Amino acid sequence: MGSAQKLFRTKLPLKLKEGDANNKPLTSGDKSKDQARTAELAQTIGALQDLFYAEHDRKLLIVLQGMDTSGKDGVVRGVFHQLDPLGVRCVSFKTPTTVEREHDYLWRVHREVPAQRETVIFNRSHYEDVLWPAVHEQIDAKECKRRYQHIRDFERMLVETGTVLLKFFLHISRDEQKSRLEARLADPNKHWKVDLNDLTERQHWNDYQRFYEKAISETDSDAAPWYVIPADSKTQRDLAIASIVLETLEDMKLQYPPPNPTYFKTKVE
Amino acid sequence: MGSAQKLFRTKLPLKLKEGDANNKPLTSGDKSKDQARTAELAQTIGALQDLFYAEHDRKLLIVLQGMDTSGKDGVVRGVFHQLDPLGVRCVSFKTPTTVEREHDYLWRVHREVPAQRETVIFNRSHYEDVLWPAVHEQIDAKECKRRYQHIRDFERMLVETGTVLLKFFLHISRDEQKSRLEARLADPNKHWKVDLNDLTERQHWNDYQRFYEKAISETDSDAAPWYVIPADSKTQRDLAIASIVLETLEDMKLQYPPPNPTYFKTKVE
Repeated sequence: MGSAQKLFRTKLPLKLKEGDANNKPLTSGDKSKDQARTAELAQTIGALQDLFYAEHDRKLLIVLQGMDTSGKDGVVRGVFHQLDPLGVRCVSFKTPTTVEREHDYLWRVHREVPAQRETVIFNRSHYEDVLWPAVHEQIDAKECKRRYQHIRDFERMLVETGTVLLKFFLHISRDEQKSRLEARLADPNKHWKVDLNDLTERQHWNDYQRFYEKAISETDSDAAPWYVIPADSKTQRDLAIASIVLETLEDMKLQYPPPNPTYFKTKVE
Repeated sequence: MGSAQKLFRTKLPLKLKEGDANNKPLTSGDKSKDQARTAELAQTIGALQDLFYAEHDRKLLIVLQGMDTSGKDGVVRGVFHQLDPLGVRCVSFKTPTTVEREHDYLWRVHREVPAQRETVIFNRSHYEDVLWPAVHEQIDAKECKRRYQHIRDFERMLVETGTVLLKFFLHISRDEQKSRLEARLADPNKHWKVDLNDLTERQHWNDYQRFYEKAISETDSDAAPWYVIPADSKTQRDLAIASIVLETLEDMKLQYPPPNPTYFKTKVE
Protein backbone atom coordinates (compact mmCIF):
# COMPACT_ATOMS: atom_id res chain seq x y z
CA MET A 1 0.00 0.00 0.00
CA GLY A 2 1.34 3.44 -0.91
CA SER A 3 1.77 6.23 1.59
CA ALA A 4 -1.16 8.35 0.35
CA GLN A 5 -3.41 5.31 0.32
CA LYS A 6 -2.51 4.69 3.98
CA LEU A 7 -2.85 8.33 4.94
CA PHE A 8 -6.34 8.91 3.56
CA ARG A 9 -7.93 5.48 3.95
CA THR A 10 -10.91 5.99 6.19
CA LYS A 11 -10.51 5.04 9.85
CA LEU A 12 -13.45 3.06 11.19
CA PRO A 13 -15.87 3.98 12.54
CA LEU A 14 -15.58 7.25 10.62
CA LYS A 15 -16.03 10.54 12.48
CA LEU A 16 -16.22 13.56 10.19
CA LYS A 17 -14.84 16.57 12.01
CA GLU A 18 -15.27 20.01 10.45
CA GLY A 19 -11.64 20.87 11.13
CA ASP A 20 -10.30 17.90 9.23
CA ALA A 21 -11.66 19.35 6.00
CA ASN A 22 -8.72 21.73 5.98
CA ASN A 23 -5.95 19.22 6.70
CA LYS A 24 -2.98 19.42 4.35
CA PRO A 25 -0.81 16.40 5.11
CA LEU A 26 0.80 16.27 1.64
CA THR A 27 1.61 19.95 1.23
CA SER A 28 5.13 21.14 0.59
CA GLY A 29 4.08 24.44 2.15
CA ASP A 30 4.10 26.09 -1.27
CA LYS A 31 0.80 26.11 -3.20
CA SER A 32 2.29 26.52 -6.66
CA LYS A 33 4.75 23.69 -6.01
CA ASP A 34 1.85 21.49 -4.92
CA GLN A 35 -0.07 22.35 -8.08
CA ALA A 36 2.95 21.53 -10.23
CA ARG A 37 3.30 18.23 -8.39
CA THR A 38 -0.36 17.37 -9.12
CA ALA A 39 0.13 18.21 -12.80
CA GLU A 40 3.13 15.86 -12.84
CA LEU A 41 1.13 13.08 -11.16
CA ALA A 42 -1.74 13.60 -13.62
CA GLN A 43 0.69 13.14 -16.50
CA THR A 44 2.02 9.88 -15.03
CA ILE A 45 -1.56 8.70 -14.46
CA GLY A 46 -2.20 9.41 -18.15
CA ALA A 47 0.85 7.37 -19.19
CA LEU A 48 -0.15 4.43 -16.98
CA GLN A 49 -3.68 4.57 -18.29
CA ASP A 50 -2.31 3.98 -21.80
CA LEU A 51 -0.76 0.78 -20.48
CA PHE A 52 -4.01 -0.09 -18.67
CA TYR A 53 -5.84 0.38 -21.96
CA ALA A 54 -3.33 -1.79 -23.84
CA GLU A 55 -3.58 -4.52 -21.18
CA HIS A 56 -7.28 -4.86 -22.06
CA ASP A 57 -8.07 -6.92 -19.00
CA ARG A 58 -9.10 -5.07 -15.85
CA LYS A 59 -11.66 -2.30 -15.29
CA LEU A 60 -11.21 0.84 -13.23
CA LEU A 61 -14.09 2.50 -11.39
CA ILE A 62 -13.67 5.69 -9.43
CA VAL A 63 -16.57 6.94 -7.29
CA LEU A 64 -16.70 10.61 -6.28
CA GLN A 65 -19.05 11.61 -3.50
CA GLY A 66 -19.35 14.76 -1.43
CA MET A 67 -21.66 17.58 -0.45
CA ASP A 68 -22.67 20.15 -3.10
CA THR A 69 -19.70 22.33 -4.15
CA SER A 70 -17.24 19.87 -2.61
CA GLY A 71 -15.40 19.77 -5.93
CA LYS A 72 -16.42 16.59 -7.73
CA ASP A 73 -16.34 18.31 -11.14
CA GLY A 74 -13.07 19.97 -10.19
CA VAL A 75 -11.43 16.61 -9.47
CA VAL A 76 -12.50 15.26 -12.86
CA ARG A 77 -10.73 18.16 -14.51
CA GLY A 78 -7.81 18.49 -12.11
CA VAL A 79 -6.79 14.85 -11.83
CA PHE A 80 -8.16 13.07 -14.90
CA HIS A 81 -7.76 15.62 -17.70
CA GLN A 82 -4.61 13.89 -18.97
CA LEU A 83 -6.40 10.63 -19.69
CA ASP A 84 -6.87 9.69 -23.33
CA PRO A 85 -10.60 10.24 -24.07
CA LEU A 86 -10.53 6.86 -25.83
CA GLY A 87 -10.37 5.04 -22.49
CA VAL A 88 -12.13 7.25 -19.96
CA ARG A 89 -15.81 7.94 -19.38
CA CYS A 90 -17.36 10.24 -16.81
CA VAL A 91 -20.91 9.53 -15.69
CA SER A 92 -22.84 12.16 -13.72
CA PHE A 93 -25.83 10.72 -11.90
CA LYS A 94 -28.64 13.24 -11.53
CA THR A 95 -32.10 13.04 -9.99
CA PRO A 96 -33.47 9.72 -11.30
CA THR A 97 -35.79 9.91 -14.31
CA THR A 98 -39.23 8.30 -14.27
CA VAL A 99 -37.91 5.18 -16.00
CA GLU A 100 -34.95 4.95 -13.62
CA ARG A 101 -37.23 5.27 -10.61
CA GLU A 102 -39.28 2.38 -11.92
CA HIS A 103 -36.23 0.11 -11.59
CA ASP A 104 -34.21 -0.85 -8.55
CA TYR A 105 -31.70 1.85 -7.62
CA LEU A 106 -28.67 -0.14 -8.79
CA TRP A 107 -30.10 -0.62 -12.31
CA ARG A 108 -28.95 2.65 -13.83
CA VAL A 109 -25.61 2.37 -12.06
CA HIS A 110 -24.88 -1.16 -13.27
CA ARG A 111 -25.45 -0.10 -16.89
CA GLU A 112 -22.60 2.39 -16.59
CA VAL A 113 -19.85 0.33 -14.93
CA PRO A 114 -16.57 0.08 -16.86
CA ALA A 115 -15.89 -2.63 -19.43
CA GLN A 116 -12.40 -4.12 -19.75
CA ARG A 117 -9.75 -1.43 -20.35
CA GLU A 118 -12.17 1.34 -19.44
CA THR A 119 -11.72 3.94 -16.71
CA VAL A 120 -15.08 5.21 -15.50
CA ILE A 121 -15.59 8.08 -13.08
CA PHE A 122 -18.90 8.22 -11.22
CA ASN A 123 -19.76 11.82 -10.38
CA ARG A 124 -22.22 10.87 -7.61
CA SER A 125 -23.38 7.26 -7.55
CA HIS A 126 -25.59 4.66 -5.90
CA TYR A 127 -24.59 6.18 -2.56
CA GLU A 128 -27.06 9.00 -3.27
CA ASP A 129 -29.79 6.36 -3.02
CA VAL A 130 -29.04 5.67 0.57
CA LEU A 131 -28.02 9.20 1.62
CA TRP A 132 -30.77 11.36 0.18
CA PRO A 133 -33.75 9.18 1.21
CA ALA A 134 -32.24 8.60 4.65
CA VAL A 135 -31.76 12.31 5.27
CA HIS A 136 -35.28 13.03 4.03
CA GLU A 137 -36.70 10.21 6.14
CA GLN A 138 -38.05 8.30 3.18
CA ILE A 139 -36.31 5.13 4.33
CA ASP A 140 -35.79 3.90 7.88
CA ALA A 141 -32.75 2.40 9.59
CA LYS A 142 -33.77 -1.11 8.61
CA GLU A 143 -34.01 -0.20 4.91
CA CYS A 144 -30.66 1.62 5.14
CA LYS A 145 -29.13 -1.55 6.50
CA ARG A 146 -30.55 -3.61 3.64
CA ARG A 147 -29.16 -1.12 1.12
CA TYR A 148 -25.69 -1.17 2.68
CA GLN A 149 -25.77 -4.93 2.20
CA HIS A 150 -26.95 -4.56 -1.44
CA ILE A 151 -24.12 -2.13 -2.08
CA ARG A 152 -21.52 -4.36 -0.42
CA ASP A 153 -22.73 -7.32 -2.49
CA PHE A 154 -22.80 -5.31 -5.72
CA GLU A 155 -19.35 -3.85 -5.22
CA ARG A 156 -17.86 -7.22 -4.21
CA MET A 157 -19.27 -8.74 -7.39
CA LEU A 158 -17.70 -5.94 -9.47
CA VAL A 159 -14.33 -6.45 -7.79
CA GLU A 160 -14.49 -10.24 -8.13
CA THR A 161 -15.15 -9.83 -11.86
CA GLY A 162 -12.10 -7.70 -12.54
CA THR A 163 -12.93 -4.16 -11.42
CA VAL A 164 -10.53 -2.06 -9.41
CA LEU A 165 -12.72 0.22 -7.32
CA LEU A 166 -11.78 3.44 -5.54
CA LYS A 167 -14.22 5.58 -3.57
CA PHE A 168 -13.51 9.16 -2.58
CA PHE A 169 -15.44 11.29 -0.14
CA LEU A 170 -14.61 14.97 -0.65
CA HIS A 171 -14.84 16.41 2.84
CA ILE A 172 -15.57 20.14 3.04
CA SER A 173 -16.65 22.24 5.99
CA ARG A 174 -19.98 24.00 6.21
CA ASP A 175 -18.25 27.40 6.11
CA GLU A 176 -16.35 26.50 2.97
CA GLN A 177 -19.58 25.45 1.27
CA LYS A 178 -21.13 28.78 2.25
CA SER A 179 -18.35 30.77 0.65
CA ARG A 180 -18.41 28.63 -2.52
CA LEU A 181 -22.17 29.04 -2.90
CA GLU A 182 -21.82 32.79 -2.35
CA ALA A 183 -19.09 32.97 -4.97
CA ARG A 184 -21.36 31.26 -7.50
CA LEU A 185 -24.26 33.57 -6.73
CA ALA A 186 -22.06 36.65 -7.11
CA ASP A 187 -20.49 35.69 -10.46
CA PRO A 188 -22.83 35.95 -13.50
CA ASN A 189 -20.63 33.47 -15.39
CA LYS A 190 -21.22 30.90 -12.66
CA HIS A 191 -25.00 31.22 -12.46
CA TRP A 192 -25.35 28.17 -14.71
CA LYS A 193 -23.83 26.12 -11.88
CA VAL A 194 -26.33 27.34 -9.29
CA ASP A 195 -29.03 24.98 -8.12
CA LEU A 196 -31.25 26.51 -5.47
CA ASN A 197 -31.86 23.02 -4.11
CA ASP A 198 -28.25 23.12 -2.90
CA LEU A 199 -29.29 25.90 -0.51
CA THR A 200 -32.13 23.90 1.00
CA GLU A 201 -30.12 20.66 1.14
CA ARG A 202 -27.57 22.64 3.13
CA GLN A 203 -30.14 22.88 5.95
CA HIS A 204 -29.65 19.13 6.43
CA TRP A 205 -25.88 19.43 6.81
CA ASN A 206 -25.59 17.56 10.09
CA ASP A 207 -27.84 14.74 8.94
CA TYR A 208 -25.79 14.35 5.77
CA GLN A 209 -22.56 14.19 7.77
CA ARG A 210 -24.07 11.57 10.05
CA PHE A 211 -25.36 9.42 7.18
CA TYR A 212 -22.08 9.77 5.29
CA GLU A 213 -20.21 8.53 8.37
CA LYS A 214 -22.53 5.57 8.57
CA ALA A 215 -22.58 4.75 4.83
CA ILE A 216 -18.81 4.98 4.50
CA SER A 217 -18.21 2.90 7.62
CA GLU A 218 -20.64 0.25 6.42
CA THR A 219 -19.23 -0.07 2.90
CA ASP A 220 -15.50 0.32 3.35
CA SER A 221 -13.42 -2.77 2.65
CA ASP A 222 -9.93 -3.55 1.39
CA ALA A 223 -11.39 -4.49 -1.99
CA ALA A 224 -13.63 -1.41 -2.18
CA PRO A 225 -11.83 1.17 -0.07
CA TRP A 226 -13.13 4.61 0.91
CA TYR A 227 -10.72 7.53 1.08
CA VAL A 228 -11.76 10.63 3.01
CA ILE A 229 -10.15 13.63 1.32
CA PRO A 230 -9.86 17.02 3.03
CA ALA A 231 -11.33 19.25 0.33
CA ASP A 232 -11.50 22.80 1.67
CA SER A 233 -8.32 23.39 -0.34
CA LYS A 234 -8.77 22.52 -4.01
CA THR A 235 -5.03 22.16 -4.46
CA GLN A 236 -4.68 19.69 -1.60
CA ARG A 237 -7.78 17.78 -2.68
CA ASP A 238 -6.42 17.18 -6.19
CA LEU A 239 -2.94 16.38 -4.89
CA ALA A 240 -4.32 13.76 -2.50
CA ILE A 241 -6.55 12.09 -5.08
CA ALA A 242 -3.90 12.11 -7.80
CA SER A 243 -1.47 10.49 -5.34
CA ILE A 244 -3.93 7.72 -4.44
CA VAL A 245 -4.95 7.03 -8.05
CA LEU A 246 -1.31 6.82 -9.09
CA GLU A 247 -0.42 4.49 -6.21
CA THR A 248 -3.37 2.29 -7.17
CA LEU A 249 -2.24 2.10 -10.80
CA GLU A 250 1.28 1.27 -9.64
CA ASP A 251 -0.10 -1.52 -7.45
CA MET A 252 -1.72 -3.02 -10.54
CA LYS A 253 1.69 -3.89 -12.04
CA LEU A 254 0.43 -3.05 -15.50
CA GLN A 255 2.12 -4.67 -18.47
CA TYR A 256 1.71 -4.85 -22.21
CA PRO A 257 0.02 -8.11 -23.24
CA PRO A 258 2.57 -10.76 -24.31
CA PRO A 259 3.68 -10.37 -27.95
CA ASN A 260 2.55 -12.83 -30.59
CA PRO A 261 5.72 -14.46 -32.03
CA THR A 262 4.10 -15.16 -35.40
CA TYR A 263 3.56 -11.42 -35.94
CA PHE A 264 7.29 -10.83 -36.32
CA LYS A 265 7.24 -13.01 -39.43
CA THR A 266 3.93 -11.75 -40.86
CA LYS A 267 4.27 -10.02 -44.25
CA VAL A 268 2.19 -7.04 -45.32
CA GLU A 269 1.35 -7.37 -49.04
CA MET B 1 -16.29 29.94 -42.77
CA GLY B 2 -12.72 29.71 -41.48
CA SER B 3 -9.73 29.16 -43.71
CA ALA B 4 -9.09 25.54 -42.65
CA GLN B 5 -12.77 24.73 -43.08
CA LYS B 6 -12.57 26.07 -46.65
CA LEU B 7 -9.27 24.35 -47.40
CA PHE B 8 -10.27 20.83 -46.35
CA ARG B 9 -13.99 20.81 -47.14
CA THR B 10 -14.44 18.02 -49.68
CA LYS B 11 -14.75 19.05 -53.32
CA LEU B 12 -17.56 17.27 -55.11
CA PRO B 13 -17.52 14.77 -56.65
CA LEU B 14 -14.63 13.60 -54.48
CA LYS B 15 -11.61 11.99 -56.16
CA LEU B 16 -9.17 10.44 -53.68
CA LYS B 17 -5.67 10.61 -55.15
CA GLU B 18 -2.87 8.72 -53.37
CA GLY B 19 -0.60 11.74 -53.63
CA ASP B 20 -3.00 14.02 -51.79
CA ALA B 21 -2.55 11.96 -48.62
CA ASN B 22 0.75 13.69 -48.12
CA ASN B 23 -0.35 17.29 -48.73
CA LYS B 24 0.72 19.75 -46.05
CA PRO B 25 -1.10 22.98 -46.78
CA LEU B 26 -0.95 24.25 -43.18
CA THR B 27 2.68 23.50 -42.43
CA SER B 28 5.07 26.19 -41.32
CA GLY B 29 7.86 24.02 -42.74
CA ASP B 30 8.99 23.15 -39.22
CA LYS B 31 7.51 19.99 -37.68
CA SER B 32 8.09 20.92 -34.05
CA LYS B 33 6.55 24.35 -34.61
CA ASP B 34 3.52 22.65 -36.17
CA GLN B 35 3.20 20.35 -33.17
CA ALA B 36 3.41 23.28 -30.78
CA ARG B 37 0.74 25.04 -32.81
CA THR B 38 -1.56 22.00 -32.54
CA ALA B 39 -1.01 21.84 -28.76
CA GLU B 40 -1.98 25.50 -28.57
CA LEU B 41 -5.11 24.94 -30.65
CA ALA B 42 -6.03 21.91 -28.47
CA GLN B 43 -5.81 24.11 -25.40
CA THR B 44 -8.09 26.75 -26.94
CA ILE B 45 -10.52 23.99 -27.98
CA GLY B 46 -10.53 22.86 -24.34
CA ALA B 47 -11.30 26.38 -23.12
CA LEU B 48 -14.14 26.81 -25.64
CA GLN B 49 -15.55 23.42 -24.71
CA ASP B 50 -15.92 24.67 -21.13
CA LEU B 51 -18.08 27.44 -22.50
CA PHE B 52 -19.96 24.97 -24.71
CA TYR B 53 -20.62 22.87 -21.60
CA ALA B 54 -21.82 25.90 -19.62
CA GLU B 55 -24.11 26.96 -22.48
CA HIS B 56 -26.00 23.67 -22.03
CA ASP B 57 -27.84 23.97 -25.31
CA ARG B 58 -26.21 22.53 -28.41
CA LYS B 59 -24.63 19.12 -29.03
CA LEU B 60 -21.35 18.42 -30.81
CA LEU B 61 -20.78 15.25 -32.82
CA ILE B 62 -17.48 14.49 -34.51
CA VAL B 63 -17.26 11.50 -36.85
CA LEU B 64 -13.84 9.99 -37.61
CA GLN B 65 -13.54 7.64 -40.56
CA GLY B 66 -10.55 6.25 -42.42
CA MET B 67 -8.78 3.07 -43.45
CA ASP B 68 -7.14 0.93 -40.74
CA THR B 69 -4.08 2.69 -39.22
CA SER B 70 -5.20 6.04 -40.65
CA GLY B 71 -4.93 7.53 -37.17
CA LYS B 72 -8.44 7.74 -35.72
CA ASP B 73 -7.19 6.87 -32.22
CA GLY B 74 -4.29 9.26 -32.69
CA VAL B 75 -6.64 12.16 -33.45
CA VAL B 76 -8.65 11.49 -30.29
CA ARG B 77 -5.49 11.82 -28.27
CA GLY B 78 -3.78 14.52 -30.31
CA VAL B 79 -6.68 16.94 -30.73
CA PHE B 80 -9.17 16.18 -27.96
CA HIS B 81 -7.01 15.32 -24.96
CA GLN B 82 -7.47 18.81 -23.48
CA LEU B 83 -11.24 18.42 -23.18
CA ASP B 84 -12.67 18.10 -19.69
CA PRO B 85 -13.72 14.42 -19.35
CA LEU B 86 -16.97 15.71 -17.83
CA GLY B 87 -18.19 16.84 -21.25
CA VAL B 88 -16.59 14.51 -23.78
CA ARG B 89 -17.35 10.93 -24.70
CA CYS B 90 -15.57 8.78 -27.26
CA VAL B 91 -17.50 5.90 -28.81
CA SER B 92 -15.64 3.22 -30.79
CA PHE B 93 -17.95 1.20 -33.02
CA LYS B 94 -16.70 -2.35 -33.51
CA THR B 95 -18.07 -5.33 -35.43
CA PRO B 96 -21.78 -5.34 -34.53
CA THR B 97 -22.85 -7.74 -31.78
CA THR B 98 -25.67 -10.24 -32.31
CA VAL B 99 -28.19 -7.90 -30.68
CA GLU B 100 -26.98 -4.94 -32.72
CA ARG B 101 -27.25 -6.93 -35.95
CA GLU B 102 -30.85 -7.74 -35.08
CA HIS B 103 -31.70 -4.02 -35.25
CA ASP B 104 -31.42 -1.57 -38.11
CA TYR B 105 -27.87 -0.29 -38.57
CA LEU B 106 -28.63 3.18 -37.19
CA TRP B 107 -30.02 1.84 -33.91
CA ARG B 108 -26.75 1.46 -32.03
CA VAL B 109 -25.50 4.76 -33.44
CA HIS B 110 -28.57 6.75 -32.41
CA ARG B 111 -28.21 5.54 -28.81
CA GLU B 112 -24.78 7.15 -28.62
CA VAL B 113 -25.39 10.60 -30.10
CA PRO B 114 -24.55 13.55 -27.84
CA ALA B 115 -27.03 15.08 -25.42
CA GLN B 116 -27.06 18.84 -24.83
CA ARG B 117 -23.63 20.17 -23.75
CA GLU B 118 -21.96 16.88 -24.71
CA THR B 119 -19.11 16.46 -27.19
CA VAL B 120 -19.14 12.96 -28.67
CA ILE B 121 -16.45 11.53 -30.92
CA PHE B 122 -17.43 8.58 -33.11
CA ASN B 123 -14.39 6.42 -33.79
CA ARG B 124 -15.91 4.74 -36.88
CA SER B 125 -19.66 5.13 -37.32
CA HIS B 126 -22.72 4.29 -39.38
CA TYR B 127 -20.58 4.83 -42.48
CA GLU B 128 -19.06 1.40 -41.85
CA ASP B 129 -22.50 -0.02 -42.59
CA VAL B 130 -22.46 1.23 -46.12
CA LEU B 131 -18.72 0.79 -46.80
CA TRP B 132 -17.98 -2.70 -45.53
CA PRO B 133 -21.04 -4.46 -47.00
CA ALA B 134 -20.59 -2.59 -50.31
CA VAL B 135 -16.94 -3.61 -50.61
CA HIS B 136 -17.81 -7.20 -49.71
CA GLU B 137 -20.71 -7.21 -52.18
CA GLN B 138 -23.31 -7.88 -49.53
CA ILE B 139 -25.39 -4.93 -50.69
CA ASP B 140 -25.91 -3.69 -54.24
CA ALA B 141 -25.90 -0.20 -55.70
CA LYS B 142 -29.63 0.20 -55.10
CA GLU B 143 -29.29 -0.65 -51.41
CA CYS B 144 -26.28 1.68 -51.12
CA LYS B 145 -28.43 4.46 -52.53
CA ARG B 146 -31.18 3.76 -50.00
CA ARG B 147 -28.65 3.87 -47.16
CA TYR B 148 -27.15 7.17 -48.33
CA GLN B 149 -30.66 8.55 -48.12
CA HIS B 150 -31.19 7.06 -44.63
CA ILE B 151 -27.93 8.64 -43.51
CA ARG B 152 -28.75 12.02 -45.02
CA ASP B 153 -32.17 11.94 -43.32
CA PHE B 154 -30.72 10.84 -39.97
CA GLU B 155 -27.97 13.46 -39.98
CA ARG B 156 -30.34 16.23 -41.06
CA MET B 157 -32.64 15.33 -38.16
CA LEU B 158 -29.70 15.49 -35.73
CA VAL B 159 -28.65 18.90 -37.07
CA GLU B 160 -32.20 20.25 -37.00
CA THR B 161 -32.51 19.21 -33.36
CA GLY B 162 -29.42 21.09 -32.19
CA THR B 163 -26.40 18.97 -33.14
CA VAL B 164 -23.31 20.48 -34.72
CA LEU B 165 -21.89 17.70 -36.88
CA LEU B 166 -18.37 17.40 -38.31
CA LYS B 167 -17.18 14.46 -40.39
CA PHE B 168 -13.52 13.75 -41.04
CA PHE B 169 -12.06 11.30 -43.52
CA LEU B 170 -8.44 10.56 -42.66
CA HIS B 171 -6.83 10.02 -46.04
CA ILE B 172 -3.69 7.86 -46.04
CA SER B 173 -1.87 6.24 -48.95
CA ARG B 174 -1.55 2.50 -49.42
CA ASP B 175 2.22 2.72 -48.89
CA GLU B 176 1.81 4.59 -45.62
CA GLN B 177 -0.61 1.95 -44.37
CA LYS B 178 1.93 -0.75 -45.28
CA SER B 179 4.67 0.88 -43.25
CA ARG B 180 2.34 1.47 -40.27
CA LEU B 181 1.19 -2.16 -40.26
CA GLU B 182 4.82 -3.31 -40.52
CA ALA B 183 5.80 -1.08 -37.60
CA ARG B 184 3.06 -2.64 -35.45
CA LEU B 185 4.11 -6.17 -36.37
CA ALA B 186 7.76 -5.42 -35.56
CA ASP B 187 7.13 -3.85 -32.12
CA PRO B 188 6.13 -6.31 -29.35
CA ASN B 189 4.52 -3.44 -27.41
CA LYS B 190 2.23 -2.75 -30.36
CA HIS B 191 1.06 -6.31 -30.94
CA TRP B 192 -2.10 -5.57 -28.97
CA LYS B 193 -3.06 -3.17 -31.75
CA VAL B 194 -2.66 -5.77 -34.50
CA ASP B 195 -5.75 -7.20 -36.12
CA LEU B 196 -4.93 -9.65 -38.89
CA ASN B 197 -8.21 -8.69 -40.55
CA ASP B 198 -6.58 -5.36 -41.35
CA LEU B 199 -4.18 -7.24 -43.65
CA THR B 200 -6.97 -8.91 -45.58
CA GLU B 201 -9.14 -5.77 -45.74
CA ARG B 202 -6.11 -4.10 -47.30
CA GLN B 203 -6.59 -6.32 -50.36
CA HIS B 204 -9.77 -4.34 -51.04
CA TRP B 205 -7.98 -1.00 -50.99
CA ASN B 206 -9.21 0.28 -54.34
CA ASP B 207 -12.80 -0.73 -53.66
CA TYR B 208 -12.70 1.06 -50.30
CA GLN B 209 -11.34 4.21 -51.94
CA ARG B 210 -14.09 4.07 -54.55
CA PHE B 211 -16.86 3.54 -52.00
CA TYR B 212 -15.47 6.26 -49.75
CA GLU B 213 -15.52 8.68 -52.68
CA LYS B 214 -19.12 7.76 -53.33
CA ALA B 215 -20.29 7.77 -49.69
CA ILE B 216 -18.65 11.10 -48.93
CA SER B 217 -19.97 12.72 -52.10
CA GLU B 218 -23.47 11.47 -51.37
CA THR B 219 -23.60 12.62 -47.75
CA ASP B 220 -21.72 15.90 -47.73
CA SER B 221 -23.80 19.00 -47.06
CA ASP B 222 -23.29 22.40 -45.49
CA ALA B 223 -25.09 21.20 -42.36
CA ALA B 224 -23.17 17.90 -42.19
CA PRO B 225 -19.88 18.66 -43.90
CA TRP B 226 -17.15 16.17 -44.77
CA TYR B 227 -13.52 17.21 -44.47
CA VAL B 228 -10.88 15.15 -46.28
CA ILE B 229 -7.70 15.29 -44.21
CA PRO B 230 -4.31 14.34 -45.64
CA ALA B 231 -3.13 11.90 -42.97
CA ASP B 232 0.19 10.42 -44.07
CA SER B 233 1.77 12.94 -41.68
CA LYS B 234 0.39 12.62 -38.17
CA THR B 235 1.49 16.15 -37.33
CA GLN B 236 -0.33 17.66 -40.30
CA ARG B 237 -3.39 15.51 -39.70
CA ASP B 238 -3.78 16.75 -36.11
CA LEU B 239 -3.02 20.33 -37.08
CA ALA B 240 -5.70 20.30 -39.78
CA ILE B 241 -8.37 18.74 -37.58
CA ALA B 242 -7.61 20.96 -34.60
CA SER B 243 -7.88 24.01 -36.87
CA ILE B 244 -11.26 22.94 -38.23
CA VAL B 245 -12.69 22.03 -34.82
CA LEU B 246 -11.56 25.35 -33.42
CA GLU B 247 -13.03 27.32 -36.33
CA THR B 248 -16.30 25.43 -35.86
CA LEU B 249 -16.42 26.27 -32.15
CA GLU B 250 -15.67 29.91 -32.96
CA ASP B 251 -18.53 29.92 -35.50
CA MET B 252 -20.86 28.83 -32.70
CA LYS B 253 -20.46 32.19 -30.91
CA LEU B 254 -20.58 30.43 -27.56
CA GLN B 255 -21.73 32.41 -24.56
CA TYR B 256 -22.47 31.83 -20.91
CA PRO B 257 -26.21 31.53 -20.31
CA PRO B 258 -27.75 34.84 -19.17
CA PRO B 259 -27.36 35.43 -15.43
CA ASN B 260 -30.33 35.21 -13.11
CA PRO B 261 -30.74 38.67 -11.47
CA THR B 262 -32.37 37.22 -8.34
CA TYR B 263 -29.23 35.19 -7.60
CA PHE B 264 -27.26 38.33 -6.80
CA LYS B 265 -29.63 38.93 -3.88
CA THR B 266 -29.92 35.31 -2.71
CA LYS B 267 -28.61 34.70 0.80
CA VAL B 268 -26.80 31.53 1.88
CA GLU B 269 -27.82 30.61 5.43
